[in-house]
Amino acid sequence: MTEPTFAQTGADLLVQSLLSQGVDTCFANPGTSEMHMVAALDRHPGVRSILALFEGVATGAADGYARMSGKPAATLLHLGPGLANGIANLHNARKAATPVLNIVGDHATHHLEYDAPLTSDLDGLARTVSHWLGRALSADEVAARTAEAVAATRGGPGRIATLVMPADAAWSAPSPGAVAAPAPRVAAEQPVDEDRIRAAAALLRRHGAAGMLMLGGATLNAEGIRLAAAIARSLQCRMAGQSSNSRMQRGPGIPRVARVPYPIDQALAFMQGVRALVRIGAPTPVAFFAYPGKPSMLVEDGCEVLDPVPEGTHPLAALKALAAFLDVDESDAPDQPRQRPERPQGALAHQTVAEAIASTLPDHAIVVDEAVTTGRLQTYEACVAVGPHDWINNMGGSIGYGLPVALGASIACPERRVLALVGDGSAFYTSQALWTMAREGCDVTVVIYANRSYAILQGEWKNMGAGEAGRSARDLLRLDRPDPDWVAIARGHGVPALRVDDAEGLCTALERSYATSGPMLIEAWLD
Amino acid sequence: MTEPTFAQTGADLLVQSLLSQGVDTCFANPGTSEMHMVAALDRHPGVRSILALFEGVATGAADGYARMSGKPAATLLHLGPGLANGIANLHNARKAATPVLNIVGDHATHHLEYDAPLTSDLDGLARTVSHWLGRALSADEVAARTAEAVAATRGGPGRIATLVMPADAAWSAPSPGAVAAPAPRVAAEQPVDEDRIRAAAALLRRHGAAGMLMLGGATLNAEGIRLAAAIARSLQCRMAGQSSNSRMQRGPGIPRVARVPYPIDQALAFMQGVRALVRIGAPTPVAFFAYPGKPSMLVEDGCEVLDPVPEGTHPLAALKALAAFLDVDESDAPDQPRQRPERPQGALAHQTVAEAIASTLPDHAIVVDEAVTTGRLQTYEACVAVGPHDWINNMGGSIGYGLPVALGASIACPERRVLALVGDGSAFYTSQALWTMAREGCDVTVVIYANRSYAILQGEWKNMGAGEAGRSARDLLRLDRPDPDWVAIARGHGVPALRVDDAEGLCTALERSYATSGPMLIEAWLD
Repeated sequence: MTEPTFAQTGADLLVQSLLSQGVDTCFANPGTSEMHMVAALDRHPGVRSILALFEGVATGAADGYARMSGKPAATLLHLGPGLANGIANLHNARKAATPVLNIVGDHATHHLEYDAPLTSDLDGLARTVSHWLGRALSADEVAARTAEAVAATRGGPGRIATLVMPADAAWSAPSPGAVAAPAPRVAAEQPVDEDRIRAAAALLRRHGAAGMLMLGGATLNAEGIRLAAAIARSLQCRMAGQSSNSRMQRGPGIPRVARVPYPIDQALAFMQGVRALVRIGAPTPVAFFAYPGKPSMLVEDGCEVLDPVPEGTHPLAALKALAAFLDVDESDAPDQPRQRPERPQGALAHQTVAEAIASTLPDHAIVVDEAVTTGRLQTYEACVAVGPHDWINNMGGSIGYGLPVALGASIACPERRVLALVGDGSAFYTSQALWTMAREGCDVTVVIYANRSYAILQGEWKNMGAGEAGRSARDLLRLDRPDPDWVAIARGHGVPALRVDDAEGLCTALERSYATSGPMLIEAWLD
Repeated sequence: MTEPTFAQTGADLLVQSLLSQGVDTCFANPGTSEMHMVAALDRHPGVRSILALFEGVATGAADGYARMSGKPAATLLHLGPGLANGIANLHNARKAATPVLNIVGDHATHHLEYDAPLTSDLDGLARTVSHWLGRALSADEVAARTAEAVAATRGGPGRIATLVMPADAAWSAPSPGAVAAPAPRVAAEQPVDEDRIRAAAALLRRHGAAGMLMLGGATLNAEGIRLAAAIARSLQCRMAGQSSNSRMQRGPGIPRVARVPYPIDQALAFMQGVRALVRIGAPTPVAFFAYPGKPSMLVEDGCEVLDPVPEGTHPLAALKALAAFLDVDESDAPDQPRQRPERPQGALAHQTVAEAIASTLPDHAIVVDEAVTTGRLQTYEACVAVGPHDWINNMGGSIGYGLPVALGASIACPERRVLALVGDGSAFYTSQALWTMAREGCDVTVVIYANRSYAILQGEWKNMGAGEAGRSARDLLRLDRPDPDWVAIARGHGVPALRVDDAEGLCTALERSYATSGPMLIEAWLD
């Protein structure tokens, strides 16, 4: 139980209730309507406030923070337009099933009817991305609404909750005796469904090599991957991961998880011949985009799909039950010895970039992968067992997630090195994250894949059968004229930076950044 | 009439229909689902495509383009998250009554059910900011939907229309004989309401010096301001403008328009004693934010408010009718001789910055004002009659509008110099606009007011009565630790830049930028 404390304003109740619910980190981009919340954060230093210079940085950082800490951070945003700027990364968090609590300041309740400049359809915006939406209509409602909001983030694997705080609810004094919300009770987990577990085992057993066990979500830690690999070995079926995953533990002793490739033809080839799919914590794989004459579903017609995880059951519990039913445990997984490639030499290309990263990656690194084109799978494969690390993907497809998620991961795990692999096109969307990394002294190494191009779109242009690209189309797919200078951009944001143009230079720069506390940006100049 | 043309795909019909409806400029940040539209833009060079590296740049540029050209530009955005990134500046455009046509690519119709990563509540997002929302369900629907969308942008003073283009509607061939939409018919304007005009004249006459004629929207060109000043002189009432305006023509021969100040106490003082308000093209003024113990409405209790402009009537037509009724014309306006302050010397402060800008402003400049704190009104006042120019404000209050609007204004008026006055806090939201200015060789001079602070919030902190700011609050209101380096950021985006720290340096830098084609950024370093 939290001790009842005198609360000066509704904003104090908000911050005290965040603390009592276990939320102690707030990524903020406040404005006038949030001034009393800023003041309350000042009075209750138990919540750490971190300034973002753009709202998409705040929401993406909350995503990265929760992926690594397992608990939600708050964002503090300024009315409808502030929330709008954060929606793309909330979309990504939602698709990754990350818990995020948005606190959005609004005009004072009595001010809304006047349609002041910043009045907008705030609720409509919030609804598009929030599993839960609430509004504190007075200071007295703040504690209960805050507790509901935090609880909502913890419903299911991880959800988005948006609490609207009108300025008058924040600045008003609550009734005498109003206290922060009590600490939450932990909800009991649903038991696994033993019938479905048996059915999953039977299905995979029947199909053997034509069966696939697909992992997602919370199954992708060391224990889950080892159990799945043991199950796959026992049943002689395949084990795979989704194209993108919220967080995957990797390293020596953790079997390799093959992921469904992104390019449509490779994805179809990957799924070819799969006649039975048991998915645990993962949806049935679908094409990222539709393409003329190509299917949306990646599983073949007639493939039997089974999801043994009922709503409310932890997917790792289901996986454990499946292993127990099959009488295998982690020790039955194939071994994955530590392996590290040689330091590469020569020009920067997909493979040499991958080897440079793998040959230097420090133990316990957190890799945030937004390398949209360059070395997308090569780097993932090359790093498989270099040392213990986590691998983080974008699950919502909205680019600009990498730098903010890296920032949030570093705030959650200050003792670990974060390596953000970001395409130059992607990095532009939320480059403001660099400044917060500098301010907070985050140990983040950013590698910018500088190909001056939306290279992925050049591939998609072909996949779409859009014909020959002329001058106008080339201009829309390339970031040259002028070439961005990421060293200058980083320095402008207070982050030391350097450019490299060969594999040896990349290795040396990476090592230098790992040996230096605080952020560093490496622009890998690709031809 | 447009000649029927063979169309290969729905996307070709889209682009041809844009052209037939008079839309010839597209600010684009495309992705895979827009590849066929990129291809069609390539085949029809009559539509100029301009790449933005972030969607808020595209929507803000469309706003600035339409404010100066009087016609809508298109944006080309990538699904729901791409639209979300553009919403803050669409909000600003909406509040400024700017016509904007958003074309948002979506997944192919048959792909939506699979909840692929980029699937989101696109329609819900679009509804929050669009006056019109439509979807082309097939290639055959494209021409009609495009014509409806463009017509919708022209309903009223200027509106936001969002046309969703599923990828299959874009890539499919339309039925034989499908043609682009025919050129639109121009809708007749509603006549003015003579009764209301007479009532407005009588009201202002009755109240004399306690009467105020408030201008907004399309009344703020040279003719409208002169007519209003003539009316005010004739009736001995006050003339004023809103706090923020979409576009105001200014210069010698155009009387000064006093604007309602932003700070709440100054705004209340400005409106004090006004007993009758006739507003033409402007809403009744309200406080930007609510503050404890202060009113939301800026007009006093009992002030009579009259809007003589019925829906569908052009406000300038109403103003002309009022002048005609009172038997005054532009020649009855007080004279406004050309006046230019001396070049200032000494430290950079609100007044010296204003004088530096006013003493050097070139004729026909377009000033985009996002100087949130520094010299907000001083610069406006100092420039009043230095030479003919236009003054553009943010009407929606979502910061990050300045650089994109300046970009769009420059694309609309390539023969004019654009001067963007931007606070350093604001500039971070959409700094990517700098790159497009460089690519397109825009004659934009950017002045960054580098006070390393959300200075406006420090004032708001006091207005809100939030108490003493401690360490955490100070950190949320200041952009120091580290100090941003805007010279580096600009160069990183391909824009030449320099820093100045006194008034003489600012004058010299401004003159140098005006004498140099292409963009230049000047970081005005404030203490």
